[in-house]
Amino acid sequence: MKDLTDIPALMHDMGRRARDAAAVLAYAAPEAKRRALEAAADAVEAQAPEILAANAQDLDYGREKGLSDAMMDRLTLSPERIADIAIGLRTVAAQDDPVGAVMDEWDRPSGLHIRRVRTPLGVVGVIYESRPNVTADAGALCLKSGNAVILRGGSESFHSSRAIHACLVEGLRAVGLPEDAIQLVPTRDRAAVSEMLTMTDTIDVIVPRGGKGLVGLVQREARVPVFAHLEGIVHIYIDREADPLKALEVVKNAKTRRTGICGAAECLLIHRDVVDTIGQGVIRALIEAGVEVRTDETLSKIVGTVPASEDDWGREYLDMIIAARVVDDIDSAIAHIRRYGSNHTDCILTEDDAAADRFFQRLDSAILMRNASTQFADGGEFGMGAEIGIATGKMHARGPVGAEQLTSFKYLVTGDGTVR
Amino acid sequence: MKDLTDIPALMHDMGRRARDAAAVLAYAAPEAKRRALEAAADAVEAQAPEILAANAQDLDYGREKGLSDAMMDRLTLSPERIADIAIGLRTVAAQDDPVGAVMDEWDRPSGLHIRRVRTPLGVVGVIYESRPNVTADAGALCLKSGNAVILRGGSESFHSSRAIHACLVEGLRAVGLPEDAIQLVPTRDRAAVSEMLTMTDTIDVIVPRGGKGLVGLVQREARVPVFAHLEGIVHIYIDREADPLKALEVVKNAKTRRTGICGAAECLLIHRDVVDTIGQGVIRALIEAGVEVRTDETLSKIVGTVPASEDDWGREYLDMIIAARVVDDIDSAIAHIRRYGSNHTDCILTEDDAAADRFFQRLDSAILMRNASTQFADGGEFGMGAEIGIATGKMHARGPVGAEQLTSFKYLVTGDGTVR
Repeated sequence: MKDLTDIPALMHDMGRRARDAAAVLAYAAPEAKRRALEAAADAVEAQAPEILAANAQDLDYGREKGLSDAMMDRLTLSPERIADIAIGLRTVAAQDDPVGAVMDEWDRPSGLHIRRVRTPLGVVGVIYESRPNVTADAGALCLKSGNAVILRGGSESFHSSRAIHACLVEGLRAVGLPEDAIQLVPTRDRAAVSEMLTMTDTIDVIVPRGGKGLVGLVQREARVPVFAHLEGIVHIYIDREADPLKALEVVKNAKTRRTGICGAAECLLIHRDVVDTIGQGVIRALIEAGVEVRTDETLSKIVGTVPASEDDWGREYLDMIIAARVVDDIDSAIAHIRRYGSNHTDCILTEDDAAADRFFQRLDSAILMRNASTQFADGGEFGMGAEIGIATGKMHARGPVGAEQLTSFKYLVTGDGTVR
Repeated sequence: MKDLTDIPALMHDMGRRARDAAAVLAYAAPEAKRRALEAAADAVEAQAPEILAANAQDLDYGREKGLSDAMMDRLTLSPERIADIAIGLRTVAAQDDPVGAVMDEWDRPSGLHIRRVRTPLGVVGVIYESRPNVTADAGALCLKSGNAVILRGGSESFHSSRAIHACLVEGLRAVGLPEDAIQLVPTRDRAAVSEMLTMTDTIDVIVPRGGKGLVGLVQREARVPVFAHLEGIVHIYIDREADPLKALEVVKNAKTRRTGICGAAECLLIHRDVVDTIGQGVIRALIEAGVEVRTDETLSKIVGTVPASEDDWGREYLDMIIAARVVDDIDSAIAHIRRYGSNHTDCILTEDDAAADRFFQRLDSAILMRNASTQFADGGEFGMGAEIGIATGKMHARGPVGAEQLTSFKYLVTGDGTVR
């Protein structure tokens, strides 16, 4: 039994074992990785009762801690959600193996033939919130892309993540791949997170998924390269040339379909000229749907709204709450999003192509949308299969991150005694 | 006149100005960037005498400091080299503009149309050795890719870099682009480098080019993401199935064509079974060409070699010196390269496809070569036009880095009132 109180020693040991596993995984047969994921899916299905029992422990803990309804919902597993986890594993299993895939190849006048092929990154560290399914998705995508992974889930989902992780290890064992390929940090101690952020010798990249607390920690402490998966402060701008019906449908869907996902709308910007027409209609519909609408002074004349405070701009509610304010024109909307957004997903509602072009060109969010619900910000909806999350940084990975974005590449150059 | 002794204030001011320039550059017209680079090339040609005079100051300084011949060679400009700098600028000017290029686009069953388009990274910081031409190449590639850049050249090339930088600014001014798009750190104080490595608010990525000293500094201090362009500890492995003639030609070219570039061979590994045949011939030819060959005990029986010390493994000479040792088999060669290499460029000489495949699969250098001179490790030779250098890391950029790899991407999603 390892000493779970000596965090540096514990994490150093996990890192070393991950590095060793990565060396084997880098050239593991695609078929072995596929079968491991299928065996893991079988195990998840077979062990659904154990996973539910583990989840019940987490839910008790969550209730004691007084988690919000939205957080409890994300934490909760059901037979259906467990079935979805197994389906997710099978989906990743069935995807093409990215490792070794030739991205480009060309000949040079010198006589050289050059190929650019995908290669794993090495060891990935994933730090995530209390969503048990991320354990399966992140583990599967890292394995598929030939990376070893160290998973550190939220403390509220501790037992659920352990039960799911056991199934992943069962899959690895079934095909003879190293069990250290997918490791789960076996303690709730937050010191493990700080340790991971500085393990430059053994972790090649950290994927941090979470809100403001994690943002700050990563900014202060990370020495390992980071694919940030941070807040989704999603804005929707209703332009002067918006279509009233589309605006109504899209905003309602973007806010209320599921409030707990990072693509949920959090702030509504309304062009001054359409406040009394489209704006009124949209805000009333949101209030009728049970949304708390926190508004600036101009919009506060609409019955049922509540006044916003300065804190409400740039805030991720993940709940049935939205901030709303009036803007003078598209450039004011762009300026607001630049100041308060998180470069995740932002949307314009307009029939005016020039306005849409300006919005698309002058903003630099990972995902920019026109006349579409921001709830589509999702790897599955983009056609990528599973995703480890939505990257909000610009280095290497961006937007929905699947197995391909968890790889790097190398050049293979062939000559015949060719000299320069 | 700015206070050049208050480095934090100086650098903070440069960062803020770069950030402002980047906001404009992000949607600058391709034509403006092209014309700016052409005007810069004109200025380099017109001001060749001034650049040569500045270079003469640097050469005096270098002689006083007692720089090695190899370093003096890299520092020296001539009318021909200045003409090449202008040609380089025109080459980048003529390339396709990467910003806004559609990398992929597809339709989804939901009705959404998704485009993935290139977008600049923002502000790039380039820290480089005393090669005056890098000032022009790095400045041009950053401008082409829509990034603002802060250049910090080696202290020995201070005046040459300033003279070339003045030409780049003249190009920006000629077309009305912000002059702060390409800034050069106006002091030799090394504190500026440490400052750049931590300017997370204003620099998006640092490109460090250099040897061991810079490697250590970056590892200790960098908080900004890094595209490492570090040492090229280039290995060539002569396999048992190597062709003797190809081996002779390739090794000679890889070591001696130009010793000061990062693709120059630094270490020769020879399969035990061909030491007395191919090995002897290659080492004698190197010695005849004037190369100092530092060998292990087995090879030291060859007349004219000198004994290697432990320090010689994993060393970048950038000079007419090479280390050489015997290995038992291909796996020993791979193990040596894993331990001492720098993931830059490594080469196998063999006629055996299985050996080449194993070498390509089990090593993870940015560039792996078979039967070709490692001096081909170069963006131009790869067909990419100019390069900012050869990236040795795995995040985002790898191998020869041109304008494309200095971009990120965003997703533009269009619907028609589409909801999920």
